[in-house]
Amino acid sequence: MSEIEIGRAKRARRAYSFDDIAIVPSRRTRDTEEVSTAWQIDAYRFEIPVVAAPMDSVMSPETAISFGRLGGLGVLNLEGLWTRYSDPQPLLAEVAQLQGVEATRRLQEIYAEPVKAELITERLREIREAGVTVAGSLSPQHTKEFAKTVVDAGVDMFVIRGTTVSAEHVSSQAEPLNLKEFIYELDVPVIVGGCATHQAALHLMRTGAAGVLVGFGGGAAHTTRTVLGIAVPMASAVADVAAARRDYLDESGGRYVHVIADGSIGTSGDLAKAIACGADAVMVGSPFARATDAPGHGFHWGAEAHHALLPRGERVQFDQVGTMEEILFGPSRVADGTMNLVGALKRSMATTGYTEVKEFQRVEVVTA
Amino acid sequence: MSEIEIGRAKRARRAYSFDDIAIVPSRRTRDTEEVSTAWQIDAYRFEIPVVAAPMDSVMSPETAISFGRLGGLGVLNLEGLWTRYSDPQPLLAEVAQLQGVEATRRLQEIYAEPVKAELITERLREIREAGVTVAGSLSPQHTKEFAKTVVDAGVDMFVIRGTTVSAEHVSSQAEPLNLKEFIYELDVPVIVGGCATHQAALHLMRTGAAGVLVGFGGGAAHTTRTVLGIAVPMASAVADVAAARRDYLDESGGRYVHVIADGSIGTSGDLAKAIACGADAVMVGSPFARATDAPGHGFHWGAEAHHALLPRGERVQFDQVGTMEEILFGPSRVADGTMNLVGALKRSMATTGYTEVKEFQRVEVVTA
Amino acid sequence: MSEIEIGRAKRARRAYSFDDIAIVPSRRTRDTEEVSTAWQIDAYRFEIPVVAAPMDSVMSPETAISFGRLGGLGVLNLEGLWTRYSDPQPLLAEVAQLQGVEATRRLQEIYAEPVKAELITERLREIREAGVTVAGSLSPQHTKEFAKTVVDAGVDMFVIRGTTVSAEHVSSQAEPLNLKEFIYELDVPVIVGGCATHQAALHLMRTGAAGVLVGFGGGAAHTTRTVLGIAVPMASAVADVAAARRDYLDESGGRYVHVIADGSIGTSGDLAKAIACGADAVMVGSPFARATDAPGHGFHWGAEAHHALLPRGERVQFDQVGTMEEILFGPSRVADGTMNLVGALKRSMATTGYTEVKEFQRVEVVTA
Amino acid sequence: MSEIEIGRAKRARRAYSFDDIAIVPSRRTRDTEEVSTAWQIDAYRFEIPVVAAPMDSVMSPETAISFGRLGGLGVLNLEGLWTRYSDPQPLLAEVAQLQGVEATRRLQEIYAEPVKAELITERLREIREAGVTVAGSLSPQHTKEFAKTVVDAGVDMFVIRGTTVSAEHVSSQAEPLNLKEFIYELDVPVIVGGCATHQAALHLMRTGAAGVLVGFGGGAAHTTRTVLGIAVPMASAVADVAAARRDYLDESGGRYVHVIADGSIGTSGDLAKAIACGADAVMVGSPFARATDAPGHGFHWGAEAHHALLPRGERVQFDQVGTMEEILFGPSRVADGTMNLVGALKRSMATTGYTEVKEFQRVEVVTA
Repeated sequence: MSEIEIGRAKRARRAYSFDDIAIVPSRRTRDTEEVSTAWQIDAYRFEIPVVAAPMDSVMSPETAISFGRLGGLGVLNLEGLWTRYSDPQPLLAEVAQLQGVEATRRLQEIYAEPVKAELITERLREIREAGVTVAGSLSPQHTKEFAKTVVDAGVDMFVIRGTTVSAEHVSSQAEPLNLKEFIYELDVPVIVGGCATHQAALHLMRTGAAGVLVGFGGGAAHTTRTVLGIAVPMASAVADVAAARRDYLDESGGRYVHVIADGSIGTSGDLAKAIACGADAVMVGSPFARATDAPGHGFHWGAEAHHALLPRGERVQFDQVGTMEEILFGPSRVADGTMNLVGALKRSMATTGYTEVKEFQRVEVVTA
Repeated sequence: MSEIEIGRAKRARRAYSFDDIAIVPSRRTRDTEEVSTAWQIDAYRFEIPVVAAPMDSVMSPETAISFGRLGGLGVLNLEGLWTRYSDPQPLLAEVAQLQGVEATRRLQEIYAEPVKAELITERLREIREAGVTVAGSLSPQHTKEFAKTVVDAGVDMFVIRGTTVSAEHVSSQAEPLNLKEFIYELDVPVIVGGCATHQAALHLMRTGAAGVLVGFGGGAAHTTRTVLGIAVPMASAVADVAAARRDYLDESGGRYVHVIADGSIGTSGDLAKAIACGADAVMVGSPFARATDAPGHGFHWGAEAHHALLPRGERVQFDQVGTMEEILFGPSRVADGTMNLVGALKRSMATTGYTEVKEFQRVEVVTA
Repeated sequence: MSEIEIGRAKRARRAYSFDDIAIVPSRRTRDTEEVSTAWQIDAYRFEIPVVAAPMDSVMSPETAISFGRLGGLGVLNLEGLWTRYSDPQPLLAEVAQLQGVEATRRLQEIYAEPVKAELITERLREIREAGVTVAGSLSPQHTKEFAKTVVDAGVDMFVIRGTTVSAEHVSSQAEPLNLKEFIYELDVPVIVGGCATHQAALHLMRTGAAGVLVGFGGGAAHTTRTVLGIAVPMASAVADVAAARRDYLDESGGRYVHVIADGSIGTSGDLAKAIACGADAVMVGSPFARATDAPGHGFHWGAEAHHALLPRGERVQFDQVGTMEEILFGPSRVADGTMNLVGALKRSMATTGYTEVKEFQRVEVVTA
Repeated sequence: MSEIEIGRAKRARRAYSFDDIAIVPSRRTRDTEEVSTAWQIDAYRFEIPVVAAPMDSVMSPETAISFGRLGGLGVLNLEGLWTRYSDPQPLLAEVAQLQGVEATRRLQEIYAEPVKAELITERLREIREAGVTVAGSLSPQHTKEFAKTVVDAGVDMFVIRGTTVSAEHVSSQAEPLNLKEFIYELDVPVIVGGCATHQAALHLMRTGAAGVLVGFGGGAAHTTRTVLGIAVPMASAVADVAAARRDYLDESGGRYVHVIADGSIGTSGDLAKAIACGADAVMVGSPFARATDAPGHGFHWGAEAHHALLPRGERVQFDQVGTMEEILFGPSRVADGTMNLVGALKRSMATTGYTEVKEFQRVEVVTA
């Protein structure tokens, strides 16, 4: 990225969000029927390059199962309501009834309940028994505490997800998670993030991760830019981390670490742009919060929304537009990019002449 | 266009829309009476460089005829209501009564009715008998199926129009339309598009087309950017394709392929800018949907709005400001650029010192 | 200005409006009491570098007189209501009562009444008898017809003002105004414009004009950008024409042609920025339309608003904030830059360390 | 900063506001518990790098004391209501009841009451007796008149604060304040500003000031850009003045003058960005006007709002979100960056791997 002088003592790079860019068709087109959206990470193959975000408004054991059956990877939040309460349904219904500022306060209360190891085991068992790929997420803060429980429960894919996860966390009070050792000792492939820069991603790749998450997640629902001053313009972040993938591929003699864009993907157009910038797959939250069968009853929130001291997100409400299956595969009844995400991706690829997700990373984009 | 680094693994060109630019007057002015807006493509001469878009909300056999009599080229959509139904008037009236999301669903139903070859023949006959230039459009998907019908019906100008039409469509399921052979064998001049880049346009020009459409069409009514992530900033696209015209003129030893800007032209100011960027003519939809004599009863929609699985447009409503003749030639009663399009173009040319459309392509513009 | 590639066949300059820039204070400050805002053009000295725009909503013979007494130059529109009607007061009152689109139609009617030479003579006589500098404006279209009347009536300053006035108007139907000859033969100093570029301004300067108007005028009320696609980002235009002033000063061996920014000056901040970009004075309309003693009764419109065939402006309504004297010199009761224009200019100059308008043209600006 | 050509006769630097930039996390993270926000200027050490702005809506003797006890530096406006009236409480209550434009007029009246030296003495005595660091501010216009009173009253820190304060104020009517002599003779450390450029800051540093204020103050409540055309995009201004600090450090052989960002800091994110651009501390107004214990009863205004002739600000109303302590340290109940400012700063630093404010000046930023 080109460097800019903010003032004499500070330089900055110019960074771009998905809204800043657009995909441009060129001289070749294809039939949508020719397009494959398949994606494989480690031993697991998926028909669609879409990972459902581990957020309580989107993923329950039930929706993780149905999402897996639809060809994607559903990740259950192992520090959410399903592992804090044996029956979270009444709480999910209550959250959908909260009004105004009261919502933040009540979310803080509800999430003050501790996570229970036995519920982690139970929830993952439910998913595993359904025969789909089993994936659960922990925050880096709690990975050491619950990792053994998770692995023993028989997870296929382990996700470590926080606002920013670094390979080099420094702490004087507790011994921090040594990601490299942790991943080395673990039996299962790990997806870890968010990260935002080439350097941060390269360090995460060196820990042995199978995939890295780019971004913060929760674009629709968080206010990190306002609260912390921190933001990750996603088009630039994904393109930077894609370069880290290439550099690490060379450095490691052939290890391909998957780049998964996580955040600011609210429409099918954003999904296509994420891949156009170099992502292998995307982690998506808010579009699935619109599903009639989502656990959030039309509401959506991330872990930022219930932080006890510094909430950095809000519970947002969406129109419920159709089932999760319709949101993924249509038919669409709306023209705003929130239904038939996979159909739209295929058409975007076909219109620009691509048949494979990996090739579509090379499509021409413009800033506009 | 200058290249920008989005991130280390992705570069982009900076592209501009009509809104990003403005025409600047300089040292010479003219009388508006001196200005000619005449345009000739193949054997057909038109008093105005305006093509009415083949959209059901704008063009019926009746309005195609009156548009031709006013000096322009009206193109009938040969896959629209007029070739699906023997009497589409009640449906047009119904569409104007639809409310909210229901509109998309009902449009999907109405357009599920198959196109009938005999109605194509009948509609084109009506227009031919009126003595104006006869032009009809098909999508690339249906060109093979209906082309013979269209040519036999006695069309003067054949338009192949889709979101993106490439000279190199790849399909494994059906033998795709070979544009070059098709155009070579056809008796009539062909206008084909949309396209968005220098390279794509050059390939279309090499098929033997008389004109290429730049852009998607339907700027006012489509949401392709949100749904597919694809967008064509029109000022840049037109200027790129104008360069392809020049390059192909040289390469072909003198064949001048007309560049027709198609999309994002909602006001007379946009029309002037399209030519300022290098267009020979413009294809216009939404301004004519404002006509009291337009078939859409004040509503406007394109083919994207009724796609069965992935609608990418919405039916939009406009104020009806005057007759089609008044919208073209005034007098204007509004100050927002939606009436007296040709008078405004003439004044824009006169104010900047130009008397011919071709010369006006050289006028100075600024980004602002 | 730096050149940008819009597309392969079109380049553009990057241009800036007043809103794009801001004045920056630096190491020196002054007392506001030290600041002089005096301005002299030809033999006429004014205490303030502000010319009231020849618009019916702002200037009547009465307000031209009071504006002159306040230290500025008031210019009467000699093709407005005061020279078409012997008593325009009832019409001004009627305009203030019009509703919606009806306003454009009624303005077109009212201004269809011909201009009367004897009323020109009468109105200028009224102003002359009051002892202030007498200035009247004609459009280039009618300058030949009425110029003798105007000069015979004893005008001190002659203003030729149109959307774009060029030194090189080409017409085959009528012999166009030869500005150079016209100005040479005239006894009185001429201010002429608008113009927008270095080259156009240089040509106008060579006609012998005492001052050139930069811009279109009527920023608050016109829609030329939408209707014609033409726009003049004022910061860039003023800075370009200021360079023409310098170049012509050299070329002519010392003739200093005044640069008067005309348009997009809605606040005292805009006024300061116009001078910061190189203007010697500003022509202002809308801020005076807010005066309780303005003829427009709180409404504002320019000649574009009543064009018979192609209106390019609208009648706009403003809050009436105080007398014309208060708007110029305060005290201000509002914090939005629409009162105490001169006080604000003085404070802007003092805060950045300048005491003369001419020096203030060198103040530092940033784009922001 | 890179230079841009506005037009041929004017160049400008490209400047950036806090909104234009964002902080980017990179490869290292920390525990928030590791982070120190301590700041020391001259002999005074503070736990937080936050100075409460000398505005009547924020600082009373009582809130200056409580702010000091919370670890910050509260500055009392010595030309505000507390030094004009022996009991300003009824006036503060009245201001909170004013409606619309009436507010500006009544503020002008209330502040017409002269400042009394004995009240300065009394207010500073109250603060000193509470045992916190005592700081009061005067405008440069009144510094000579009241400085002796202030120093005799036993102030620890003297603040000279105006829209723009230069080391080189020129006046012919009165002998201006010679800042260098004044500061040299004074016993107490002086913080002086605002300033906006490297050069202006360097001159202020050479007067012997302990700290300089960058910006205008009162971002939420002033309209200087509209009224005077003057604006200071804060990210660029802070980064420029930080370079002046470095240059002066070298030139003076080791004198470190503190850079305090003053203005446009409305959220915790802005606070973090100010430091990221090079500030040592920030002066904050509007966030504290939201405190339930702020003197303004939820209203906020600066000295610009009651200028007798040229008001350049407005009284604005905020939601009262919590106590001043909660606004500084949480827990936060809102997600918009207006509560737990210090907690947010710590998290921003921890997320990007920094533990000291001084080091955090080096954090990576992007424009977005």
